[in-house]
Amino acid sequence: MKTPLRIGVAGLGTVGASLLRLLARRRAALAQVSGREIEVVAVSARDRARDRGVDISAFAWFDDPVRLAREADVDCVVELIGGAGGPARATVEAALARGLHVVTANKALLAAHGMDLAAMAERRGVALAFEAAVAGGIPVIKTLRESLVGNEITQVSGILNGTCNYILSRMEQEGLSFEACLADAQRLGYAEADPSFDVDGHDTAHKLAILASLAFGLRIDAEAVRVEGIRSVQPIDIRMAEQLGYRIKLLGVATRTADGVEQRVCPTMVEKSSPLARVMGVTNAVHVDATPLGELTLVGPGAGGDATASSVIADIVDIAQAGSRGPVLAAPAGELRHMKRAPVKDHPGGYYVRVNLLDRPGAAASVASRMAEAGISLESIVQRRSREAAELDPRGRSGAEVPVILITYDTTEEAVRGALQKATADGYVGASPQVIRIERN
Amino acid sequence: MKTPLRIGVAGLGTVGASLLRLLARRRAALAQVSGREIEVVAVSARDRARDRGVDISAFAWFDDPVRLAREADVDCVVELIGGAGGPARATVEAALARGLHVVTANKALLAAHGMDLAAMAERRGVALAFEAAVAGGIPVIKTLRESLVGNEITQVSGILNGTCNYILSRMEQEGLSFEACLADAQRLGYAEADPSFDVDGHDTAHKLAILASLAFGLRIDAEAVRVEGIRSVQPIDIRMAEQLGYRIKLLGVATRTADGVEQRVCPTMVEKSSPLARVMGVTNAVHVDATPLGELTLVGPGAGGDATASSVIADIVDIAQAGSRGPVLAAPAGELRHMKRAPVKDHPGGYYVRVNLLDRPGAAASVASRMAEAGISLESIVQRRSREAAELDPRGRSGAEVPVILITYDTTEEAVRGALQKATADGYVGASPQVIRIERN
Repeated sequence: MKTPLRIGVAGLGTVGASLLRLLARRRAALAQVSGREIEVVAVSARDRARDRGVDISAFAWFDDPVRLAREADVDCVVELIGGAGGPARATVEAALARGLHVVTANKALLAAHGMDLAAMAERRGVALAFEAAVAGGIPVIKTLRESLVGNEITQVSGILNGTCNYILSRMEQEGLSFEACLADAQRLGYAEADPSFDVDGHDTAHKLAILASLAFGLRIDAEAVRVEGIRSVQPIDIRMAEQLGYRIKLLGVATRTADGVEQRVCPTMVEKSSPLARVMGVTNAVHVDATPLGELTLVGPGAGGDATASSVIADIVDIAQAGSRGPVLAAPAGELRHMKRAPVKDHPGGYYVRVNLLDRPGAAASVASRMAEAGISLESIVQRRSREAAELDPRGRSGAEVPVILITYDTTEEAVRGALQKATADGYVGASPQVIRIERN
Repeated sequence: MKTPLRIGVAGLGTVGASLLRLLARRRAALAQVSGREIEVVAVSARDRARDRGVDISAFAWFDDPVRLAREADVDCVVELIGGAGGPARATVEAALARGLHVVTANKALLAAHGMDLAAMAERRGVALAFEAAVAGGIPVIKTLRESLVGNEITQVSGILNGTCNYILSRMEQEGLSFEACLADAQRLGYAEADPSFDVDGHDTAHKLAILASLAFGLRIDAEAVRVEGIRSVQPIDIRMAEQLGYRIKLLGVATRTADGVEQRVCPTMVEKSSPLARVMGVTNAVHVDATPLGELTLVGPGAGGDATASSVIADIVDIAQAGSRGPVLAAPAGELRHMKRAPVKDHPGGYYVRVNLLDRPGAAASVASRMAEAGISLESIVQRRSREAAELDPRGRSGAEVPVILITYDTTEEAVRGALQKATADGYVGASPQVIRIERN
């Protein structure tokens, strides 16, 4: 048996503690499959005394993770600190500079500095592994990087944020508002005190940018992702989707088009029978369209200490077996192309539009004719005045706002938004129309 | 860049031809990710002249695959001949004996001789890779062998035979008989002229035995799988399942129990909302229950030249990058334990029972009381005489056979079969009662 692989763990939060427990529990099996022992020898965290349910007294302690990366007697540093810069970045850079392998679960770091770190790892001939950074315990990085190498990928899409999927699932199942479900998610620990990173779609965008890089051989470019979160989704949208045979999911979608790669994160109506529509709660899912393989769907736990630690261990064993295996992002970092951004607005498809119309004669006609002018065909228009409103104002002249739902045939979001702007200028449409893309299979 | 990885391909059927096309089409990308060229240098098949839609004139030709394995100037032999013994086995053995890496898509060979071949590969320090042998293009071998190494697996189950799933899907969607759907499957090339290997469950059993070995660290033992195929499934069973909220699937299920590992292949009623129930047509799916990860589901194309070739290429690139990485079956072949077979019959669960009752007084009472004697509680009994039968014989004394459906609460198959035997001895029950396990989530 070869010499042990010595590990330093930087960051002992939920994931770090799960990792230490799992490495201890599975020690013999991991040694067998790796052909060598996997030995934690050093750890770093903010508070040495905190009870993590795991004994860390046998490990060298470092108050400073960067010092661990620079000085600890290790072969591999596991970065579980989190955050796009700061100590996480400094730790990973110090480890790579020293020629140590790195395993990280940090999608924000990769989204911001992934290209530099990949180039650094390749120069030093070490691994930079990150299965845990996207979709938690689902082996999507390995699948894209290794299993699908024989294919050209045309689209990768997924439910990549458990917080958002939990909120949307609850809104549908219990008819609750976004705010009520967010509060529940926070109470249950599924959402942060400041939820904006999750619910505004940025977390999904980071993960999508990493998947798109692997899928299409492009430099990671989170700036190229068009991002829309789920705050504007209202119970009426969920109900209407239900009636139309759809479910609203926050999807990250990266598509190869004739013009480049389109990356977008937005609430999307997916057919109830589609694989992604079936994914409820904090579960994640990734769907890949590949040529010639066809469609592959992976569904599993997207977050949590154990699921994330499971992926970290897979990376560690890969390193124990064979060190650095091929370029970090499937092609050498220096040869990855810059992403040619395909304009999201020109993507044809059907749209769900909810506008608040001022309840007076000519309102619906104005919107309908503005849509017609823009060449948009309508599949349906649903206007529902409440019974109370109808009784108070039987002639429909109150000027109160009434939600109206329009479903378009294939068109572009640009055309839809242009028509809505004109209808707003006509004075009939209230603030903030909702526009949701319909994904027809 | 390192020296090229030289490949010999033994067997040029659908998969072999797909493989040659894909390797040519993806040549540059594969070289980039592998750090070396992947070069086919030799091929072997029965008929050199056959048009395969791919030019093989540049490759050394061998009439005999074993001679290819013994003499061709290659680093790696890809075995796509098929069959549990004969030339496939001889080719793989010759290649391993010579210290060449082997990639195979041959589940029958692995089910019969996998342990010997794994030991041989490990002695020579070469890879024996077989992603394509189970579930075609779904990366289930890599997932079990590499991604889930940090976990203990409690169950692995799946829809592993596209022919059976196609037939069951058609029976449900169009109300057709097994025989009619099988004939269609044969016409479309989804089923062999002799379909028994598929429809009687043996193909699924071979694949399950391989998955169980990886999941539980056991020697491959296809003999330990209890196998039941789909020939006995009738349209009435499909309809009743539908009404009860279930769908009938041919599942392979391997479960770790207190007594050992239970492996069974049988038609199973799965809840319509479960991930496996949603898998229709020739698609395959694998579901893994792992601790601490939780549930992971992989869905994708289970067969076909391109899907299989995609998995073969993933194996080839793994070998190009790092040669042999760890033991063939996750633990060294010599250290894998013999499977302790848990008795399938004692597995508790609900059962669907269809018996043909002789239509005369006392028949239903006899079955019900035999069930009660065996301690089996019935959730429901449905007896449906056709209208015609009722008109011809209004008093129900014709002695004709009438199908009766019983749904039991949790019990064992042994208890159910025992009660049915006694009811048959009572003279009320017709031949071949149908017993289908209900998988409640």
